[in-house]
Parts: sequence; structure tokens; C-alpha cells
Amino acid sequence: MGLTIGVDIGGTKIAAGVVDEEGSIIETSTVPTPGTPEGVVDAICAAVQEVTSATPAEAVGIGAAGYVDDKRATVLFAPNVNWRFEALKDKVEQRIGLPVVVENDANAAAWGEYRFGAGQGHDDVVCITLGTGLGGGVIIGGRLHRGRFGVAAEFGHIRVVPDGLLCGCGSQGCWEQYASGRALVRYARQRAAATPESAAKLLALGDGTPEGVQGRHVSEAARQGDPVAVDSFRELARWAGSGLADLASLFDPSAFIVGGGVSDEGDLVLDPIRKSFRRWLVGSQWRPHAQVLAAQLGGRAGLVGAADLARQG
Amino acid sequence: MGLTIGVDIGGTKIAAGVVDEEGSIIETSTVPTPGTPEGVVDAICAAVQEVTSATPAEAVGIGAAGYVDDKRATVLFAPNVNWRFEALKDKVEQRIGLPVVVENDANAAAWGEYRFGAGQGHDDVVCITLGTGLGGGVIIGGRLHRGRFGVAAEFGHIRVVPDGLLCGCGSQGCWEQYASGRALVRYARQRAAATPESAAKLLALGDGTPEGVQGRHVSEAARQGDPVAVDSFRELARWAGSGLADLASLFDPSAFIVGGGVSDEGDLVLDPIRKSFRRWLVGSQWRPHAQVLAAQLGGRAGLVGAADLARQG
Amino acid sequence: MGLTIGVDIGGTKIAAGVVDEEGSIIETSTVPTPGTPEGVVDAICAAVQEVTSATPAEAVGIGAAGYVDDKRATVLFAPNVNWRFEALKDKVEQRIGLPVVVENDANAAAWGEYRFGAGQGHDDVVCITLGTGLGGGVIIGGRLHRGRFGVAAEFGHIRVVPDGLLCGCGSQGCWEQYASGRALVRYARQRAAATPESAAKLLALGDGTPEGVQGRHVSEAARQGDPVAVDSFRELARWAGSGLADLASLFDPSAFIVGGGVSDEGDLVLDPIRKSFRRWLVGSQWRPHAQVLAAQLGGRAGLVGAADLARQG
Amino acid sequence: MGLTIGVDIGGTKIAAGVVDEEGSIIETSTVPTPGTPEGVVDAICAAVQEVTSATPAEAVGIGAAGYVDDKRATVLFAPNVNWRFEALKDKVEQRIGLPVVVENDANAAAWGEYRFGAGQGHDDVVCITLGTGLGGGVIIGGRLHRGRFGVAAEFGHIRVVPDGLLCGCGSQGCWEQYASGRALVRYARQRAAATPESAAKLLALGDGTPEGVQGRHVSEAARQGDPVAVDSFRELARWAGSGLADLASLFDPSAFIVGGGVSDEGDLVLDPIRKSFRRWLVGSQWRPHAQVLAAQLGGRAGLVGAADLARQG
Repeated sequence: MGLTIGVDIGGTKIAAGVVDEEGSIIETSTVPTPGTPEGVVDAICAAVQEVTSATPAEAVGIGAAGYVDDKRATVLFAPNVNWRFEALKDKVEQRIGLPVVVENDANAAAWGEYRFGAGQGHDDVVCITLGTGLGGGVIIGGRLHRGRFGVAAEFGHIRVVPDGLLCGCGSQGCWEQYASGRALVRYARQRAAATPESAAKLLALGDGTPEGVQGRHVSEAARQGDPVAVDSFRELARWAGSGLADLASLFDPSAFIVGGGVSDEGDLVLDPIRKSFRRWLVGSQWRPHAQVLAAQLGGRAGLVGAADLARQG
Repeated sequence: MGLTIGVDIGGTKIAAGVVDEEGSIIETSTVPTPGTPEGVVDAICAAVQEVTSATPAEAVGIGAAGYVDDKRATVLFAPNVNWRFEALKDKVEQRIGLPVVVENDANAAAWGEYRFGAGQGHDDVVCITLGTGLGGGVIIGGRLHRGRFGVAAEFGHIRVVPDGLLCGCGSQGCWEQYASGRALVRYARQRAAATPESAAKLLALGDGTPEGVQGRHVSEAARQGDPVAVDSFRELARWAGSGLADLASLFDPSAFIVGGGVSDEGDLVLDPIRKSFRRWLVGSQWRPHAQVLAAQLGGRAGLVGAADLARQG
Repeated sequence: MGLTIGVDIGGTKIAAGVVDEEGSIIETSTVPTPGTPEGVVDAICAAVQEVTSATPAEAVGIGAAGYVDDKRATVLFAPNVNWRFEALKDKVEQRIGLPVVVENDANAAAWGEYRFGAGQGHDDVVCITLGTGLGGGVIIGGRLHRGRFGVAAEFGHIRVVPDGLLCGCGSQGCWEQYASGRALVRYARQRAAATPESAAKLLALGDGTPEGVQGRHVSEAARQGDPVAVDSFRELARWAGSGLADLASLFDPSAFIVGGGVSDEGDLVLDPIRKSFRRWLVGSQWRPHAQVLAAQLGGRAGLVGAADLARQG
Repeated sequence: MGLTIGVDIGGTKIAAGVVDEEGSIIETSTVPTPGTPEGVVDAICAAVQEVTSATPAEAVGIGAAGYVDDKRATVLFAPNVNWRFEALKDKVEQRIGLPVVVENDANAAAWGEYRFGAGQGHDDVVCITLGTGLGGGVIIGGRLHRGRFGVAAEFGHIRVVPDGLLCGCGSQGCWEQYASGRALVRYARQRAAATPESAAKLLALGDGTPEGVQGRHVSEAARQGDPVAVDSFRELARWAGSGLADLASLFDPSAFIVGGGVSDEGDLVLDPIRKSFRRWLVGSQWRPHAQVLAAQLGGRAGLVGAADLARQG
């Protein structure tokens, strides 16, 4: 199969892109993300039709934030776009006339990195995406690990603190409450409120209040050496790295790939994650260590991965 | 391949057994477990030779508590018998003249249950063994998940309590410190010391002191309704079930199998585990639930599984 | 001094009452709680004037939820009525013409119980109030322990879970997030959502949804034996009792008094708290145990205590 | 009263010293600590007799690690010297012929610092002693806070981590497991084992192995900037400071005094403790902050404090 289309459903826009066999995006089209569940389906179809009318392709892969069933056809639950048991594959196939594969977006991103990014050369890869939340994907022996019901690799919701922070999922102490972009901002705000004298640079980047601190301020302030910002990244890295150590005990991959907006900071965040990973890796003297790599595809990973999964059929 | 031999290395004895294609043990031989690393190798060979001289077999599978490398040949680290980078496969093959496969003992037990026990009819199975510690094994799509370096599914050492109990592995807060036979005894002793008036039956089964409480006393007292013993099982189940919920988020199997001595109590411990599993399963409304099953092979699982893995080659 | 006035500032109404030397309320007056900081001061004065015009009294004690300074004059911080460094004593004295004492409301309630309620006969008492949040007060050697700056005994905000639940105070893991009326409702809702089949009675008392569960439903359902409601009280008791054990290590009183709405359930909640207290009391074999008593004054404790503190001068 | 004697019972030696009204030690005598409970009593009497034969004094104060009853007469429980309900006051008075006061050693040290050390000028002081374990003492309004039964201020055993580290007291998660000299060594060993490349200086000070690391090595290495040693002090400080913040919510003193061997490092450890204290102090904008001071009397605090308590009668 030659060209295929990948679809990425974001909070503000939906992107469809034609992707070739080397993982390069040939052509893209974007539409705003509508506010209704059915509107999102319409928008996906519109974006796909626009891009394929310019550059014909043979199949469509859609990455969705949520649970996708074992047939890669129905989105069981997608809180962001308010889908419940949404038969997305059937609907889009009927309208577009191309075979459709639906996949969890973090799975799709992991696949993209495995095939065309940091995971090349590895057969066993665990990918975490530190975006607003924390997503995950697992490749085992060169195959995407979907689980029996399609909902494997939901790393963000393993419990790392009993009786810990409330999570939107209804549980407590979920990993994404401690290792994600949202967590980073919380760390920075709490520390800036408690010790503003150590957060002068950070606070100056926003409106001067702890509440005004945004993720990009933390990154910028950390690069400037602001103590609170640096400490916030360190805290994030502590939780990210200790979680990777757990994943090593579970999946034992040869490489971890860390993606998502937080990882854009590169070694500023990767190095402390590596340090924490080594700190918590059980039996580290007796086993080969997985590498901890920065993702390479940035925000394209999900779209490229979804397109490639559609190509694989 | 017809008959194969499985070897189980226990703390007090080493058992070798000839196993047929249906997982039945035809013949066994046991020898005491020696105190030196090299002595254990000798004893394995002796037990295998004894059993195969009576009933010839075609291959040998050895289950060892520890890390086994990706070639299933070298035991990287086995604390109980003090092996470090022990080339077990080569040594035993040279002496016995049969092909040898080495596997982590909990992996072997999981494979045994998958093939001939509670896992029959499932392709995606996660097995936990609640013995003195907590071991694990994973079957994905009908294949044993060994990881890139052979050390996957080391469930006992994922961190469930930050800054938690010290573990023999050098880390803190490992799952097996909260869900295992050893944990059960600790729960019972602590509670019996704090509230002896609620532990009358439990204390009467031992020497009357909290320190004298053994695992079998807790089981017996729980069956008699002793409040402290019942509460200790409940605490164990809380941690076991919440951990299974995490494993569902990671591996998404169709069935969990709970084995090991603790699970001999059947629904006394399985039912609270199931309850805790449902309590902590993330997204439980939107996904099919894995079953939580009691293991069926008891202490034979490891030997039978190792023999079958040797048969698979 | 004979009759004095106590003032209780609630979320919906402000009550002023004339109290005699035996702690009996002779006369009361209530006004709605205004929405502005200054309005609350006006309303306090109005309520006091109304009640004292009927029954003249000699001094006024005001209980306020928040920090009160060491001179018992200025409310440093009262989030509910939005006071910041509010010179309450001076303002009310000027308008009313009577001496005024301001006290933290939970301190006032503790004093009330000590003098006229469950604490009679004890000189060293620690009181916790399980209302919406968790308040505390301490009597040492027959004197209210206010601390050097007036802000002692803020039990609700000691950290019982590192990296735990967010608290309105800006910190995490505060005791009141785990032991309070609000916590009780959260426990019940979480459990009802996860295992609705065990919460039939509880859900039937509200609108059928977990979100519709209110505190009074949990109490009622627990009395009916609803498993989820009973388990929710048990969870609350676990945290309340372990916290009392810590307070015993710190203050070593002869009696704990448990008040607030949650304690209205009496032994339904007190017995599990006692059990948890014994479970976690350090060195319990070697020391006399404090009693854990139910408060006796109910919602009157704060008003009566404030009036009596004014009498003491 | 003029000169009095203070007695300090250490693990290897027992010291008796004559102390004047300014807290100066005039004369001392030491004897080795015997291995039997009764032997320790004999040794105390011998040391006191020796010192008082040279310099007559009027009363004796004895500091003992353990629970002392409300009459300051009986040691309820002293694990180090194996006393259980030991009538120490009576025994020593009979043999020595001077009035005797028995006090918990950390209480005595707190009193010493309050009277003659860092606490001078304060009436409300909370003292923590970071030695092998963590001891505490509280002065409220110029009086030692002993609690109703004599066992107040046992700070080391408040629970700061649910399901945390086992403690010698039988409980789990006690503060002294996270903030003490023993904890510091554990932090250093764990980190040195996990990341030896960051602990080169630390390991070189001992025998090269993580197990060989001692407390003095951590201090020395931290002064040299060894990353693992610095990080270990930071971890200790995190827990010490957050605990002080809790104590501020409970006791609200005007000063904290940090003593014990760990505090010998001065601002190396005090500054991070202060930072952590500010980080976790609840309501820090709305209240005066207690100072966090280094103890001034070093190892003499307990002896001097015990002597002064005997003087007070």
C-alpha cells in the first residue's frame, strides 16, 4: 500500500495528513474541532475528503484520545469529544469509501515513533507522552500491544500514590497527576505561592501571581535558572523516572521514548528523568538497562503513526 | 515432542517431573536443595537424571526464582540460591545431554496455568503468584511475554507506596511488601499486637504471642471468623486488587489468575480481591472487565509450565 | 461575672446567645449571614444587640472560622467570610460597648465541651470537630492552648498523605481531606460509582446517581447496613483514629472529644474510630490510654464556649 | 537551690554532671553503660555519688530515652536499657539521699535549650533532636509540656507516610524513619547503590561500598559537594521541614530548635529545613512565622536540662 491518511483529533483543531511509506507528511488539511460528538465525526470526514481530493490515498487511520475497542472500530469512551460507544470506523468508511482503522492516540504516537522516530532499530519500545496528561503506548516484538479489549497501555491512570490526588477518571493518585504538563504547572504554582522569593523570574514571565503561571513560563524560567522552575522540573522528572522504572519491571523494553510537550525541553527534562529512572530501577546491577530517548517526531507522531497503522491494515 | 521434564527449585527441595502433552505429571523425583550455588546445579542434574532414567524424556525446562536472560540460558541473578550470571542451560545440557530451557519460575507457573489450568480458553492472561513474595507472568496473544532482556513481568517490585516499606531488592514500597504471604503475616501480627482482644482465635492457634503467628494460623483463624485474621486478608486483598487494576490499565488481559499459597483459601481471598479490583479499575463503565480466576494447578504450575516451555522449544 | 454572650458565625446564619455560668443558653437571636466582610460585622453587632436588649450581659465572645491573633482581637484570615486582618474586637466593642473576646471557632467549641460537655473532669483534652472540614482545639492543664501567635490546634491541615489530595489551603494531603464530612461523601460517591451493586440503599436515598449522594444519605444508609455506606464510615474512622493516635503522641491528653456533624452518628462512627486509634497508638502497652468520647453539646459547643471564654476574660 | 546534678544515659556511657544556675557544668563523672536493667541503675548511682562526693549538690535530674510517667518517677518503657515500669526515682533516692526527678531525655534536652541555649527569649518553643532517631520536647508558656500521662512530644512516632517504613516501635511510616541520622545514612546508601557514579567522594570516605557508608561520611562528603551526599541531606531536610510545618499547625511556637548530631552541620542542613518548612507551612501569608534555630548546647543539652528540671523541683 502506498499513501495513507492519518487523522489527529486535537482540542482546537482536527488535522488530516497524507503520509508516505517513509513516514513523511505529503499534504495536510485542518479544520476546527466542533463542540458536539457528531460534529467531530463530520469534521473528520471533511478534513479527510479535502486532503484526499488533492492527494488520493488508500486508507485512513484515526487517533482518538480514549478507549478504542479490540476491533479498532468503536471508540468506547472519549471524554474530550464526548463519545460513548461511537462506531467511528463504520461511520467514516461509509462516508469516505476508504478502509478505516481507529486507534488510541497515544498508541498511534508510539507507533509513529517506533516506525519513523526514536524507536527505529528497537523491537520492544515503551513510549510515554507527557502532554497535558500522560499517555502511553507499547510495542512488543514489533507489534503494537493493544490488549485483549483494546485498552492496554493506559499508563496515565496507574496508581502511584495511594489516597493521592483526585483524577478526572474518578480514581486517585494516578500517574498523570504527578507526571504531565498539568502537574508541572501545579508544582510551579504551589512552590511560587509558598516561596515567591525563589520564583522571581518565573513570576515575572506571567502576570506576577502564582495562578498566572503557565507551562511555557516554567520552561522559560527553568532555562534561566529560576530555582522554583528548576525544582518543578526536577519533581516532574522524579515521578516520570520512577514510573519508567516500574514499566521496566513490567514490560522490559530495550528503549523508552519520552514524548509530548514537556519533552520538548530535551535534556533539561530528559536527564533528570534518566537519573530518577536509574535511581529506582530494581535489580539494576543484574540486568541490561533500557535507553531513555527523546521522541523525534514532535506533534506529528500521532498522525504519522495512525497513517502507518492504516497502511499495515 | 512427547514427554518433557520440568524442574522446580524450591527453598528446601528441588523437584524434577516428567510431564506429558496434556500437562500431567507422569513421574517425579526430588532432592534436597543444597546450600551452595554449584551444589544446586549438581542437584538439578541429579534429579533430572533420576527421573529420566525411569521415564525417558526429550527436553528439560527449569524454573528459577530470579532474572533469566533473553536467551533463556543464563540466570542473571537468583538471590535464593546465590547465582550471579550462572550459565545454567550450558551446564545442564552438557551433563544431561538434553536440550534445556531456563525460565523465571513465575513465568513458568503462568505458562502452566495458561496451558493446562485456569487460563485455558484465554489468549491474554496475567498471572500473579502470592507466595512468600509476589511473582508474575504475562501471556500476550498466546505467547509468554519475556521482554527484550528476559526480565519482564517482575510485578513484585513495582512501587505502590512512595517512601514505603523497605524491600529485599533495595527499593521501597514494592507491591510484594503489601500483597504476599509475608505481608499477610505482618498484617496479622501488627493487628494482633495492637488489639489482642480482637485476635483471640488467631493467637490461640500459635504460641499466644503476635510474633508466633504464622501464615497457616491466619488462614485457619479467618475461616473461624477471627476479626483480626479476616481484616488481615481484607488488607491483603485491597492491595492485590488495586494492583490488578493497574495491570489491567497496562496489559489489558481477558483474565487474571491468582495463584500461590495465599490463593489456596479460594473465595475467602479471591472475593475481596475481586471487589478491590472493581473498586480501582479505571474506566470500568466503558470497558469489558477481565475475570479474576483462582489458579488451578497449585504448586505444580511451575514444574508443568517449565516442562511445556521446553516442549515448545 | 454572670451572663455573657456567645456568637457563632455560620455559613447561612449568625447566632448570638446569652449563656449563664452553667453553660445554659438563656436566650438567642439569629440573623442571616451577609455576603460581604463588613456586612458580617454589622450582622454580628445586630444579633448581639438584639439578644442583649432582652437579657443584659457583661461580655461577648465570638467564634470565627479562621486564624485569630494572639491578642484574641484580630481575625488574621477567615476564608468563609473573606476577612483579612480584620480588627473584629475593636469594631464590635466600639459599637456594643461590652468587652469582646475573639476566638477560633473550633477552639471555642473545644472549650465549651471541656467546661460543660464531654470534657468535664478532664484537665487535658484534645477535641476534633468533624464537620464539613476538620477543626481542633486543645486544653492543657485546664487552659486553652492558643499557641504563641494564636493559631495553634489547626489539626485539619497537618499532612497525613505526602503528595495527597489537594486542599483549599493550598497544601496537599491535609488531614481534613481524609477525615471530615466532605471526605465521607467523597468516599461514598467513589465507592457507589465503582460498585453500584453494593450501594443500592445508598443510591436510592438520593437521586440514584453517585453525584447525588449527600452526607445525610450516607448516615441513613449506614444505619440500614448498606455496604458502601458502612465502608465509607469505616474509611473515615480509619483516618480519624490514626490521626488521634498521632495527637496522643504529641499532646498526650486524658481524653479526646469527637464532635461535629459526623459524630452525631454516635457509636456507629465512634467505635471504629476507637478501634483505629488503638490500632495506631504507639507504645500502647506501656502507657495509659486516653478515652475517645463523643461530644455532648452538639452545635451549641462553639457559642457556649465563646461565651464562657468571654466570662473568663 | 544552687548546684544540681544532671544525668545523661547514653548507649555506651552514663554521664553525671554538677550544673550551676547558669547552666554551666562544674564537674562531671562518666561510667560505662552496663548491659542489664539493674546494672544501669547501679551505674547511675555510682556516677552521681562520684560527682557529688567532689562537688556536693542538692538534687538529681535524670534524662532517660523512653516513656516517663506523669509523676516523673517511673520509667514506663525504655527500650535501650530494657526498663519496664522501672521505679527509678525511688531507687535512686533511696541510695543517694537526694531528691530525684526523672524526665524523658528529649524533653530534658529541650528544656536545656530553652533555658540556656537557643530558646532563650522565647516562651513557646518546640525542639526536635535529630540523632540516631528523632526526639522532641515542647515548652508552652515557659513550662515543659509533659502531657497528662507524661508521654507527650513523642514526635518521632507520628505517622508521616501511611503504609510507610517499619519502625522499631511496631508502627509504620513514623517521622523518625524519614528524618533522623539513621534515615540520612539510608538515603545515602540507597542512592550510592543506585547511582555510584554520583557518589564517588562519598564512597571513597568509607570502604567503597554503599553498606560501608556512615553518617560522618555523608556529612564530610556533603561539605565536599558530593551529589549523592548533598541530595541525601536535601531529602532529610524535606521531611524535617514538612514535619515542622505540621508542628506549627499543632503547637504554634515562636521558635523551633533543631538539635542532635545531624544539626551539627549547621546551615548545611538548617537552610534546606527552613526552605522546606516555608514550603509546607499552611496559611503562611496570614500568620507570623516561627524561627527555625540551631541548637546551641550540643550533646550537653540533656544533662544540663535534667539538672535544671531537678532545680525547679
